[in-house]
Amino acid sequence: MTYCVGVQLDRGLVFMSDTRTNSGVDNISVFRKMHQWSVPGERLITILSAGNLGTTQSVVSLLDERTKVPEDRQPSIFEVPTMFQVAELIGGLVRDSIARHLDGGQQAEAKFNATLIVGGQIAGMPPRLFLIYPEGNFIEASADTPFMQIGETKYGRPILLRAYDSSMSFEDAVKLLLVSFDSTIKANLSVGAPLDVSYYETDSLAAQPILRIDGSDEYFSSISESWGDALKRAFQSLPDFDFSKYS
Amino acid sequence: MTYCVGVQLDRGLVFMSDTRTNSGVDNISVFRKMHQWSVPGERLITILSAGNLGTTQSVVSLLDERTKVPEDRQPSIFEVPTMFQVAELIGGLVRDSIARHLDGGQQAEAKFNATLIVGGQIAGMPPRLFLIYPEGNFIEASADTPFMQIGETKYGRPILLRAYDSSMSFEDAVKLLLVSFDSTIKANLSVGAPLDVSYYETDSLAAQPILRIDGSDEYFSSISESWGDALKRAFQSLPDFDFSKYS
Repeated sequence: MTYCVGVQLDRGLVFMSDTRTNSGVDNISVFRKMHQWSVPGERLITILSAGNLGTTQSVVSLLDERTKVPEDRQPSIFEVPTMFQVAELIGGLVRDSIARHLDGGQQAEAKFNATLIVGGQIAGMPPRLFLIYPEGNFIEASADTPFMQIGETKYGRPILLRAYDSSMSFEDAVKLLLVSFDSTIKANLSVGAPLDVSYYETDSLAAQPILRIDGSDEYFSSISESWGDALKRAFQSLPDFDFSKYS
Repeated sequence: MTYCVGVQLDRGLVFMSDTRTNSGVDNISVFRKMHQWSVPGERLITILSAGNLGTTQSVVSLLDERTKVPEDRQPSIFEVPTMFQVAELIGGLVRDSIARHLDGGQQAEAKFNATLIVGGQIAGMPPRLFLIYPEGNFIEASADTPFMQIGETKYGRPILLRAYDSSMSFEDAVKLLLVSFDSTIKANLSVGAPLDVSYYETDSLAAQPILRIDGSDEYFSSISESWGDALKRAFQSLPDFDFSKYS
């Protein structure tokens, strides 16, 4: 499994991904699931990936190759004019990568499925955030659904629904995502630290470094511990139940 | 889907279940998923059920019939001497009910699977709480894992993990379960109010009435609303993230 979230804020975008991949519980590795490309001053594109590692690495490598060999006649995410076309291009690559492994040859028991979050901005247009399905189609975040989750989405969803606010700072958004990831890591062994984090400020058109937060990171540990206490206090602050009112 | 929880406390057991069943999103009904049998002064047994409604209703009806026709030579949950044997008996009925519909005849696309929570006490022995799988085998709650969830378990799990305390009162346990159910209902359309609640006090060997809490119930609404605010305050009370420490 995997857990990745992309969040749209008034001031930009925030991304977080875990790094655990597993083939069974006895084969666990660390792989980066966050990838960034930028043409400074012109565009920035961030991708988060969940699903079959062969598929997602193949998509990322193809995207990477095409940005480096511009004379190649394949369209590149550096050349298409809109974020919508970036999402279409990546969706097509996802679909093709999966189809290539499904056609003929030995069939693995596992599916080759992959789901991606793609976010970024191209100069002159607002930032956009997409979720790309294994079939290559995609949906876009909006004011009603301002964040996209892929992988193990359920444990960490309630706190996102309750505490997200489009006007929050990048710092608060990272804090919120850490709480959401902490709940998920506590419940699902196949999601694990270290975590990768990045944010993108609207119209900066430049990549911020991807920060890595280890499981032993002092701040992350303090969030994890104080969240347990804060939740207990929040719970105690609720009005009490009274059986006699229901009998 | 469904969401049911059984919780083991120092002072007894608490059960909560939703009542929504659906066959597709366009066919929704209300069915009770909590059933109780008791021989006052001797034993009390509560069952919560998730999965195929045909299977779970068949199991409940069979259990019911056998308690009412004691001359029947089938063993009854009123006659077996331990809670372990109660769980075995119910597990066998679940397995048989599923097998009967799988063998021959037209095959439905849906599985006939069902998962049950069984809890109760027989005089002279401590209360016990089991989770019964569709295969008929089962596991028992313990101090390490003092609550059992079936159905849509993920959204409501983080708060159970954080705020459960074996010494809590029945009132607090109901409050905790309402918070867990509220998070689940907000995220999954196929889990819905009204909710059924009951508690069992160790050594009382008597059934308490099953309380029904409507979606419009004043207390449940106040929990739902104040939990959103309490979560936001809890979130704000956490230490702030600082990008400069990671660059």
